[in-house]
Amino acid sequence: MSINLPRGTQDILPGQVEKWQAIEGKAREICKKYLYREIRTPIFEHTELFLRSVGETTDIVQKEMYTFTDRGNRSLTLRPEGTASTVRSYVEHKMFGDAQQPVKLYYVGPMFRYERPQAGRYRQFVQFGIEALGSADPAIDAEVISLAMTLYKEMGLNKLKLVVNSLGDKESRSAHREALVNHFKPRINEFCSDCQNRIEKNPLRILDCKQDRNHELMSSAPAIIDYLNDYSREYFEKLQKYLTDMDVSYVVDPNLVRGLDYYNHTAFEIMSVSEGFGAITTLCGGGRYNGLVEEMGGPETPGIGFALSIERFIAALEAEKVDMALNESVDCYLISLGDAAKDYTVKLLHGLRSHGLKAERDYLDRKLKAQFKAAERLQAKFVAVLGDNELNNGVINLKDQATGEQREVQLNQFIETLKSLK
Amino acid sequence: MSINLPRGTQDILPGQVEKWQAIEGKAREICKKYLYREIRTPIFEHTELFLRSVGETTDIVQKEMYTFTDRGNRSLTLRPEGTASTVRSYVEHKMFGDAQQPVKLYYVGPMFRYERPQAGRYRQFVQFGIEALGSADPAIDAEVISLAMTLYKEMGLNKLKLVVNSLGDKESRSAHREALVNHFKPRINEFCSDCQNRIEKNPLRILDCKQDRNHELMSSAPAIIDYLNDYSREYFEKLQKYLTDMDVSYVVDPNLVRGLDYYNHTAFEIMSVSEGFGAITTLCGGGRYNGLVEEMGGPETPGIGFALSIERFIAALEAEKVDMALNESVDCYLISLGDAAKDYTVKLLHGLRSHGLKAERDYLDRKLKAQFKAAERLQAKFVAVLGDNELNNGVINLKDQATGEQREVQLNQFIETLKSLK
Repeated sequence: MSINLPRGTQDILPGQVEKWQAIEGKAREICKKYLYREIRTPIFEHTELFLRSVGETTDIVQKEMYTFTDRGNRSLTLRPEGTASTVRSYVEHKMFGDAQQPVKLYYVGPMFRYERPQAGRYRQFVQFGIEALGSADPAIDAEVISLAMTLYKEMGLNKLKLVVNSLGDKESRSAHREALVNHFKPRINEFCSDCQNRIEKNPLRILDCKQDRNHELMSSAPAIIDYLNDYSREYFEKLQKYLTDMDVSYVVDPNLVRGLDYYNHTAFEIMSVSEGFGAITTLCGGGRYNGLVEEMGGPETPGIGFALSIERFIAALEAEKVDMALNESVDCYLISLGDAAKDYTVKLLHGLRSHGLKAERDYLDRKLKAQFKAAERLQAKFVAVLGDNELNNGVINLKDQATGEQREVQLNQFIETLKSLK
Repeated sequence: MSINLPRGTQDILPGQVEKWQAIEGKAREICKKYLYREIRTPIFEHTELFLRSVGETTDIVQKEMYTFTDRGNRSLTLRPEGTASTVRSYVEHKMFGDAQQPVKLYYVGPMFRYERPQAGRYRQFVQFGIEALGSADPAIDAEVISLAMTLYKEMGLNKLKLVVNSLGDKESRSAHREALVNHFKPRINEFCSDCQNRIEKNPLRILDCKQDRNHELMSSAPAIIDYLNDYSREYFEKLQKYLTDMDVSYVVDPNLVRGLDYYNHTAFEIMSVSEGFGAITTLCGGGRYNGLVEEMGGPETPGIGFALSIERFIAALEAEKVDMALNESVDCYLISLGDAAKDYTVKLLHGLRSHGLKAERDYLDRKLKAQFKAAERLQAKFVAVLGDNELNNGVINLKDQATGEQREVQLNQFIETLKSLK
């Protein structure tokens, strides 16, 4: 009897994995240009970390975490997102004291949420995210947003929509909060039980409710943008100017609120507007979280970041039919005939690879014809045939698969010849 | 109050993470030349998978697994190693029927073992491993070993020792097993309780016992190499010939047994012989596991692979004092003076990066002197200074940090000039 994959997870196999590799490689390349450096935090953290940072009232914490007790009786949780761990590490390693400021970090790796499995949604998925900690300059908000847009565009996505909003600073949020409570309170009994909780704990979250989204009070709810104080309004205006300077198109959506508790000022989402992409169109979400570092035990520190799912990225590329050119051909396939020749190809193959060539031989004791077939399947550019006779004469037959041209090459010049032809 | 890292885990921070990146990048590059392709399996699997493949009598299964129950009441375990998941996936996706044979796979990612934390040993660590499934040609055993040796050498390690052994086929192992039981049985009460269990379940494992390693019966125990049948002996001889053909030095150690249950024929370990590297010198272990695929519900399939820890790899590089050249300099740092100039650097910075340059500006509203300091800290090759006056005149000041040479460049030619100088 065989054992299967855990429900809601996937294996990423050769032929598909190249998509993840391509996106992750591009993300790393862009981060290098933008001076974001990688941080790797553990796959699991103390559960309390996510209670405190993601927020106890969120769906993630209430319904979706993989929480368990280890052999030392600690409550641990597989990370559901990357910001909490990054900020925890920032505080623990006192990066606020680093010489280089702001501290610009990126992460890429698996995250875990126990959700109902559905097409294209997995309980383990890969997130790429960045965090810039230590600057309250709207120019860095623009940098963060433009990094995400650059990544999508350089991978070939065109049908994108960037939506930005400002959630304002503490003062603005507090004025808005009061307006929200006044707006919803009289009829809160018409809302779901989650929202009835939210009105006390975090009324902003009501605007994000999937269940009540068609209630008539939703569209008439007070928008944060009308409650921004001068500082917050100027901050938002600067951000928009910088985005325009960078040729990054955007729309302002006053209803955009982020699902996590700790955002303020800039909030943004990038969506796919590709036809037939499906109901959930958000590819990337991010925003500013001044205050989170303090909440986690560090000094008062401004911060901003985003996270995006590689799986949704790939879905968007597929929806736009972007050709990712995944197949790489092999430089040379070695075919042998006879025991001595077969043995000799071990040495020859090692020589080719040592000189940087992508090469292969047969490992199944296949007949000549099947070896040629294997070479074709690998799209080998050259096929080299060695029989016991050729070996005795110190030569090998080299065939260019594209032109069909054949030549006899001295064995001791074989690698150099191939390198020059490649 | 702040929350800390879970005990026994580590954060890998910028300044250190480049070591992991360099090794993983090199591993991927070599795998490409050798035609091994990446597979990504989930971080957790059904617990039963490891019971069955790693073996119920192993330390890993008995003491070191992170096992938990998910919200759907499944027993899941964070993977302690990579072969079980790879073979599970091979069977589940019926790769034995793939057109390309053998199936050559690699993986790289975190593994988890609940061990007592000690210097350089973590409960989460990164393994790189390869598996070649579907060939029983000793040439592929040699390929697998040479891939590991190539990786170590190309990263700069020289003080390596490769140890190989043969555990023989079923018939040979069975004869050896009998000899082992006869050897230890009369005095088994002098051994630890683990060994007293092992003599029934897997007497070979006694030779691997850390507690009893100095018992006088250990050195006189029958060696598998004396019990190999003709097929197994010829297989082992071929392997050694191929290693020699590839200029891979090795020694045969008849006492080498591998810690996992499922090995046969080829077993190997690569050790660091660098002075002061510490007690545990093994960097990489691998071997052949014909029979494991069948055990996991697939057809009879030969297989071989290895796994190595990136953390131990780094420790060996450090012991040999290999310079990994981790610091990359920045192409250009933009310094501004005045509000209009400062705003303009947002656009300019974006332009530099769009043209592939690694560039940075100030995000902390720093004074001129502090901006120069930041540029130095980043080892910027060029510093460009823009004041409001320069901006009005459409020029910028460019300074070569190595030579001290300064020039005034037209703003609209700035990016091209910098690209040509770089």
